[in-house]
Amino acid sequence: MQELIAYAEYLEEKIEQIDLPNSPSNLYDPLRYFLKLGGKRIRPILTLLSAEMFGKDKDYALDAALAIELFHNFTLIHDDIMDQAPLRRNKETVHVKWNTNIAILSGDVLFVKAYEMLTNYQNDQLKELFNLFNKTASEVCEGQQLDMDFEKSENVSIDEYIEMIRLKTSVLLGCALKFGGIIGGTNESNKNHIYTFGQHVGIAFQIQDDILDLFADPDKFGKQIGGDVIANKKTLLNLKAKELANEEQHKELIRLSNEENVKIKVEQTLKLYLELGVREACENIMREHYNTAINALSQIQAPEKHKNNMLALADYLMVRNS
Amino acid sequence: MQELIAYAEYLEEKIEQIDLPNSPSNLYDPLRYFLKLGGKRIRPILTLLSAEMFGKDKDYALDAALAIELFHNFTLIHDDIMDQAPLRRNKETVHVKWNTNIAILSGDVLFVKAYEMLTNYQNDQLKELFNLFNKTASEVCEGQQLDMDFEKSENVSIDEYIEMIRLKTSVLLGCALKFGGIIGGTNESNKNHIYTFGQHVGIAFQIQDDILDLFADPDKFGKQIGGDVIANKKTLLNLKAKELANEEQHKELIRLSNEENVKIKVEQTLKLYLELGVREACENIMREHYNTAINALSQIQAPEKHKNNMLALADYLMVRNS
Repeated sequence: MQELIAYAEYLEEKIEQIDLPNSPSNLYDPLRYFLKLGGKRIRPILTLLSAEMFGKDKDYALDAALAIELFHNFTLIHDDIMDQAPLRRNKETVHVKWNTNIAILSGDVLFVKAYEMLTNYQNDQLKELFNLFNKTASEVCEGQQLDMDFEKSENVSIDEYIEMIRLKTSVLLGCALKFGGIIGGTNESNKNHIYTFGQHVGIAFQIQDDILDLFADPDKFGKQIGGDVIANKKTLLNLKAKELANEEQHKELIRLSNEENVKIKVEQTLKLYLELGVREACENIMREHYNTAINALSQIQAPEKHKNNMLALADYLMVRNS
Repeated sequence: MQELIAYAEYLEEKIEQIDLPNSPSNLYDPLRYFLKLGGKRIRPILTLLSAEMFGKDKDYALDAALAIELFHNFTLIHDDIMDQAPLRRNKETVHVKWNTNIAILSGDVLFVKAYEMLTNYQNDQLKELFNLFNKTASEVCEGQQLDMDFEKSENVSIDEYIEMIRLKTSVLLGCALKFGGIIGGTNESNKNHIYTFGQHVGIAFQIQDDILDLFADPDKFGKQIGGDVIANKKTLLNLKAKELANEEQHKELIRLSNEENVKIKVEQTLKLYLELGVREACENIMREHYNTAINALSQIQAPEKHKNNMLALADYLMVRNS
């Protein structure tokens, strides 16, 4: 994945060069700060790779890639407020380092800057990018709202949960990739397949994220094992456990959700999930989405070399920390 | 101004017909609620009048007008959070009726809906609308940030204050009108003049708003006389008073800002402002901007009938409550 690092470095340099105004400093300094926190820059890399797959130089796809990355950062700034998150990549979040009002407003203006990145494209291409960007932005907001709704709801089905993660996180991957297809001027079928690929890789990735909370290798996992369990967070593991549990096991799940000893809570939840076969059941769903993604990729008419790059990226995403 | 009412009713009907999704209801119900709170719909009326002035039917300008109105409502929802405002048009604000997270997120998605309204325009026209919309949206955010900054600053010059109101409120009027020029396909000179007209009418209107706080006819004024004075809000009156005051009067201004008896505070501030000639000084600045606006309008090449309508609207805005 040496190549991915080169793309990430290229993007990092271009992000640094984004020309944000200096004044008002309380509006734009938080953006400079937040954009420097880094990240894997997976989403804009997808746009660059996809454009190349469809025959366009990555420089031509850069602005669209940056639109995706700026939009993603806008959603993070606002999500951090909503989640009352103190840290992002081990640094203070904008609403903590400045304040909530500044985080709202600098998020808003970052959203505008994301749109501005699209204005260098022409006519039909502009229109197609603009339409997909609007659709995706609405869906991401809907996903975030469903996520907040679900935290307060007792009855969330697995289908609803997967629809939530599709909207909240996966459509943006689809959008990032389809941007490359639009810029490359490929046919509708290819554009749809690359979108499907991105969307289902995204869903599989999020499911993996849920699974890793409890089943990751502690030495490789960057976070506390069982963090979601401790917080009684709704995840696919948790929903699947409820689905598979008999009456007695259901009571045990409720008891564990109220268990105050964190160590016991995680250990006993893990034990119960193993009994129920929760991990395998979730991995099956994950694999289904991953296979849908790979199948869509295989149907794309493009040079094998580029399709293999795309596959390598998907594999890279799916094996981290596990 | 019978004609304006017809435009407002036309817009009210079209706003009602905007097709917002039903789900997630916590995301879209707040928007349905907020858009029904009404308002004078001045901004979208400007777009319609401007398009007609430049020879296009108002139906053709409708989506651009709605983009302006939706954007305006998005800023109100977020501003209400930042200002901790409990009421908007005597109804609960979104962050009070629902909560802050929902107000942030439904504001965000309303912003997307505003952009979506532009996608029905084609090619160069789309691009020109999109560019101006982005520029305006950034400026409005900058103006709101400056407004928040100024409330905490001891040294705000009159020029800085007017630049703040230009960004926060007036560029959107300019944008609304120039949208009509773009849609009407008029020349650059006309587009610039109509923008200047809107921007300076906007500044004059905001200055009038500041003046009316203390100098309105109490029987016609909808709000408490001296509300800004009581709240020690920075307004043009207040900044002008500081500028004109000698050392002793300066001390009196500081004393009055700490006066706890509201009636005495307003009465004595009024008396001091009269001594200083604050009202006339502010009215001079207001008139300057109004004249700049009217001068720009006079230079537009368009049928006199339409220019007279535009003038009537400006006059209507400038005589309310005074």
